[in-house]
Amino acid sequence: MKGHMHVFKIGGALINDANLLDSFLDAFCKVEGPKVLVHGGGRKATDISKKLGIAPKIIEGRRITDAATLEVVTMVYAGYISKSIVSKLQSKGCNAIGLCGADLGVIRAHKRNHPTIDYGYVGDIEEVNAVALINLLRIPATPVLCAISDNNQGQLLNTNADTIASQVAIALSENYFVSLHYIFEFSGVMKDINQADSLIPSITAKQFNELKEAGIIKDGMIPKIQNAVDAKIAGVHSVRICSIEGIPSGIGTSIVL
Amino acid sequence: MKGHMHVFKIGGALINDANLLDSFLDAFCKVEGPKVLVHGGGRKATDISKKLGIAPKIIEGRRITDAATLEVVTMVYAGYISKSIVSKLQSKGCNAIGLCGADLGVIRAHKRNHPTIDYGYVGDIEEVNAVALINLLRIPATPVLCAISDNNQGQLLNTNADTIASQVAIALSENYFVSLHYIFEFSGVMKDINQADSLIPSITAKQFNELKEAGIIKDGMIPKIQNAVDAKIAGVHSVRICSIEGIPSGIGTSIVL
Repeated sequence: MKGHMHVFKIGGALINDANLLDSFLDAFCKVEGPKVLVHGGGRKATDISKKLGIAPKIIEGRRITDAATLEVVTMVYAGYISKSIVSKLQSKGCNAIGLCGADLGVIRAHKRNHPTIDYGYVGDIEEVNAVALINLLRIPATPVLCAISDNNQGQLLNTNADTIASQVAIALSENYFVSLHYIFEFSGVMKDINQADSLIPSITAKQFNELKEAGIIKDGMIPKIQNAVDAKIAGVHSVRICSIEGIPSGIGTSIVL
Repeated sequence: MKGHMHVFKIGGALINDANLLDSFLDAFCKVEGPKVLVHGGGRKATDISKKLGIAPKIIEGRRITDAATLEVVTMVYAGYISKSIVSKLQSKGCNAIGLCGADLGVIRAHKRNHPTIDYGYVGDIEEVNAVALINLLRIPATPVLCAISDNNQGQLLNTNADTIASQVAIALSENYFVSLHYIFEFSGVMKDINQADSLIPSITAKQFNELKEAGIIKDGMIPKIQNAVDAKIAGVHSVRICSIEGIPSGIGTSIVL
């Protein structure tokens, strides 16, 4: 019989604020049953890059991951952020284990092929090793995944954390009813971020396209919600976008079919 | 029935040289059965610290780990070095998983108490979580441990990798006949490092003390061999110090009772 599990994704805004991160980790620890945490990067990688004199490389408006940048994100995401989160979770009684995509071959990717832009060491996901994650969940342990994948040929790759969360949730859906939660600084998708009562409680794939066209969903929210929609279409049991407070309260935006 | 397993420790000189590291990883992959790799730091942490403007803090000749240095070693050891090694091992068909002491609570330590020197964020090991390591070995996976421990109260700590290797080998000896190998740039302990034929094939605890007094074992070799001797006395099946070539050939210095 299929059990239930949770996949949570947290991003930079939350990681940059020690108090917010701590509130999230408390809420995360209270969630019962098997769970996975996927975390993005945050300001630290940019800070370290600047101090090391590595200029951000942007070609045609796209951020490029050169070799020096890959080194920094590996240090910051898989080292500093991952292990700081794991240490905090362990202190709160959650048996966390910090992984990048190379560990147990959890996230296999290939270097992005693009007709005109060389993104550098950016990975597009080929396969999530669900068996490896399930082995850890059964210990029981709580995998904490950072935004680094691996091509299984000795090359680490920088990969979007929203996409990792979506693909992990999809891969685990064969064995679990997965609830996927994108946690961010708002209560959910808002018609107007300045109006607290403008929360959109649910979005279908069709409505997502309409909201994009109307310019209500824009910028960085587009790929995030695209990943959420992809997960729902691919069979993830429930997908929502909410704030830390929305974890216990259930308030947020659900992606529905 | 007790099975057999191997614990390997590699240090900075090997990690600093990409070709040497690759040769070691090839030899490591050829070793059959359950195995653990413990790695030290190397030049990278010093390089990054310098570039970030963090001056090494030395009090009474002892290196101190301040908060800024802990951040760097966490990034470099648990991030860059650990994940680079894991990625290479995965590409060679070894199912590696990179851990620091916080992951699964594998290496619990406390901040060093010293009557006169505050070492900063340096951890002395309290307990190795052998059950967690055995769970991983049975997947089967190959744990790759870096020199960062955790106090289970949310604090990561810098810990000597030779000591981690020794304590891990001791903790696993209840369940396995453990062979502990300290791999370094020489064939073993030498009477005279300039004379290839001066290899000492075996050392007892008593001989170790004599060699220390005679000044033949000195400097950084003293704590390394002390850790090796401690492991042998505590019941580790076999303990030796050798070069990469010594892994298949068996040439090296054995610690004997």
